Amino acid sequence: MLKNDQLDAWDRENFFHPSTHLAQHARGESPNRIVTGGSGVYIEDRDGTKLLDAFAGLYCVNVGYGRSEIADAIAEQARELAYYHAYVGHGTEASITLAQMVMERAPDHMSKVYFGLGGSDANETNIKLVWYYNNILGRPEKKKIISRWRGYHGSGLMTGSLTGLELFHKKFDLPLSQVLHTVAPDYFRREDLSLSEAEFVAYCVADLEALIEREGADTIAAFIGEPALGTGGIVPPPSGYWEAIQAVLKKHDILLIADEVVSGFGRLGTMFGSDHYGIQPDFITIAKGLTSAYAPLSGSIVSDKVWKVLEDGTDEFGPIGHGWTYSAHPIGAAAGVANLKLIDSLGLVANAGSAGSYLKNALANALGDHANVGDIRGDGLLCAIEFVSDKASRTYLDPASKTGPQVATALLKEGVIGRAMPQGDILGFAPPLCISEAEIDKVVDATVKAVKSVF
Amino acid sequence: MLKNDQLDAWDRENFFHPSTHLAQHARGESPNRIVTGGSGVYIEDRDGTKLLDAFAGLYCVNVGYGRSEIADAIAEQARELAYYHAYVGHGTEASITLAQMVMERAPDHMSKVYFGLGGSDANETNIKLVWYYNNILGRPEKKKIISRWRGYHGSGLMTGSLTGLELFHKKFDLPLSQVLHTVAPDYFRREDLSLSEAEFVAYCVADLEALIEREGADTIAAFIGEPALGTGGIVPPPSGYWEAIQAVLKKHDILLIADEVVSGFGRLGTMFGSDHYGIQPDFITIAKGLTSAYAPLSGSIVSDKVWKVLEDGTDEFGPIGHGWTYSAHPIGAAAGVANLKLIDSLGLVANAGSAGSYLKNALANALGDHANVGDIRGDGLLCAIEFVSDKASRTYLDPASKTGPQVATALLKEGVIGRAMPQGDILGFAPPLCISEAEIDKVVDATVKAVKSVF
Repeated sequence: MLKNDQLDAWDRENFFHPSTHLAQHARGESPNRIVTGGSGVYIEDRDGTKLLDAFAGLYCVNVGYGRSEIADAIAEQARELAYYHAYVGHGTEASITLAQMVMERAPDHMSKVYFGLGGSDANETNIKLVWYYNNILGRPEKKKIISRWRGYHGSGLMTGSLTGLELFHKKFDLPLSQVLHTVAPDYFRREDLSLSEAEFVAYCVADLEALIEREGADTIAAFIGEPALGTGGIVPPPSGYWEAIQAVLKKHDILLIADEVVSGFGRLGTMFGSDHYGIQPDFITIAKGLTSAYAPLSGSIVSDKVWKVLEDGTDEFGPIGHGWTYSAHPIGAAAGVANLKLIDSLGLVANAGSAGSYLKNALANALGDHANVGDIRGDGLLCAIEFVSDKASRTYLDPASKTGPQVATALLKEGVIGRAMPQGDILGFAPPLCISEAEIDKVVDATVKAVKSVF
Repeated sequence: MLKNDQLDAWDRENFFHPSTHLAQHARGESPNRIVTGGSGVYIEDRDGTKLLDAFAGLYCVNVGYGRSEIADAIAEQARELAYYHAYVGHGTEASITLAQMVMERAPDHMSKVYFGLGGSDANETNIKLVWYYNNILGRPEKKKIISRWRGYHGSGLMTGSLTGLELFHKKFDLPLSQVLHTVAPDYFRREDLSLSEAEFVAYCVADLEALIEREGADTIAAFIGEPALGTGGIVPPPSGYWEAIQAVLKKHDILLIADEVVSGFGRLGTMFGSDHYGIQPDFITIAKGLTSAYAPLSGSIVSDKVWKVLEDGTDEFGPIGHGWTYSAHPIGAAAGVANLKLIDSLGLVANAGSAGSYLKNALANALGDHANVGDIRGDGLLCAIEFVSDKASRTYLDPASKTGPQVATALLKEGVIGRAMPQGDILGFAPPLCISEAEIDKVVDATVKAVKSVF
């Protein structure tokens, strides 16, 4: 085993971390953390610090840490066959079985699943397929993609463009020109405080209609959205939102991509967020919960309607020119099979629903009346607190004060990991779906202490 | 264990395979293959068929199949900690150790490695960083990327644009407008047969110079190329090519991305293709050989010159807005550490050089005089035969005859996997780097039989 100080030096000399202040990290001005193990909702680092991870990594370790069932499945697959490709009809027992298991769980009108590696590349696949679809249908002009401000769909060039957060655009020349953004369905942040929830939905619909009118429906191919906004602030949609939006899309023959990277496989207390909110998508993006992050694997689930056109396309033009070397990687597929079995056998979808209600109620009881708590919201085990400087007038805090990150740092000192969501003073929770009520109590107690220490 | 026929039905009902004729696969008109195991250079399927894989999956299983050292490392990591993220300075012993091992092996002027999942996303990262780099340097117009026809750099929207193969553009509206293509350094396919190799290099340079002149050097950010063309036909560069190209790039302050997804970690008989051809890149893309595909992992290695600007960027604008959930995934990192150790302990880099020479010589001896063999070429264990209808006049075969795929199919009947490279009648070989001379003899014997059966 290597000494911590040797690892620290190597880390700062060699390792380009994602979403990190590169200069401070290299200069040793910011802390690093070398994680060594985990069990249930806890992780442990090399300094012996044990933390309750109320964000499940990056809302992905849905079954919790240290599940030997998945580790064993990975080990067995690695010994038998760590890799073979999935091109030109090749597969493994694990990848075929997982395809079957995914389609059993997906909404009835979905047809096939393409396996990728992470959420970003799955959305990249979706956009490629959307363009291909309209080319096959002879509609070469119908190509623009509508996303929402505060949506999160990845951090590649196209997928970072879909993402409606300035942090992912700034200095990267994004968004690309093919991407348009409509308003975020964030009722708490509505500009006109006098609007009812129904009126706010009408406002969202009007913005979308105006955008389509301005650009021309014959130029717009697809609309992409998370069932509930994730990285953009953890915001469930206002009541009636998806029904109203889908009516607009249907009218203009615009495909719907449901990005279920966060919500897929139980986080909202239903197998998919589409089930939860009555969404009938043409594509479903899956990743995190598919393997609980035990191995990289993502997927693009396509509907019967889309698949039919893809078949026509290959009948006319031959094999589809799309594939990653690691599509349907056997290790990821084995992890996925074991993970979905575990979600079933532990009843984690139902637990996400009941534990989620318990968490939101407990936070509301403890902090609902706090002068700086503007909103407590969530669905299933996706939950957030938004802080304000004045509750009654919903006055936001000065972003320069970095109050959200301060609360997250204070929470960490209490032994609990929450996440300061970007672009807002918002503390997010998305714990493993196996979290118990006693563990939720710890999260809530620590959160109360953290909030009190900052305000 | 599931019966083959059940798996076959599930496969065709649910599984969207990459680079596949989707309609034929779904209708059951094309064969599928369910791979169950492998050892050394061999794989085995559920029907009991054993095949010598002379393409190492998709030129990626460089250490060969069934390596228990890597399987054990994966198993141990899965049991200890299958996942934690690498954002904001987080890491694991495996990811930090691998970063150190990669940088020990990379050319001296390289600084840091960012870990992704596959080659496509690593190139996506590179392009994002190139744009960021020029924005930080105050050169917002310097953004276009030059790639080569017949280059392969991925199959996403941007990376598929970089790829210079029609198959990856057709019906996907690619290439994107930010990407320009210059001529392929494919001496065999030169239009003017009278050119010497040196004259052909001058022609390549002139084409590049003209492109830069036409677009304006102040609009061009980077040039991307594989040290030796891979999927575009397996073509080592003509002598002097990289020296001449780099002089042009330097003159115009254009960054160089060496895509070493295929060549990295030994395939050409050197640790990197950059070492092999005297390339001094600003970015090196790595993937396949990094883990020998035992788990998905890729990387973007950035130079000191680039890193300095990235540091300045985060000092000015804060944490970099780029990251994948699965960046530096612990399972991939553990596989990478074990894989690089194995490459060293088995002496696979040197073996790739000597076995590669043996393979090319053996093919030349066996088929060099064949009337339909236009070219036998390669460097290290990357080797190809290009078929023609007439050798003396270098007349190509009719693409509709699909002669290359026919030879690959005949080779498969002989128990050996080669690859029919797209856009040309080219049979490619890229076996595991551990292949023995006796195994190479089997490959060559089978190839001779396959060629004779087709012509």
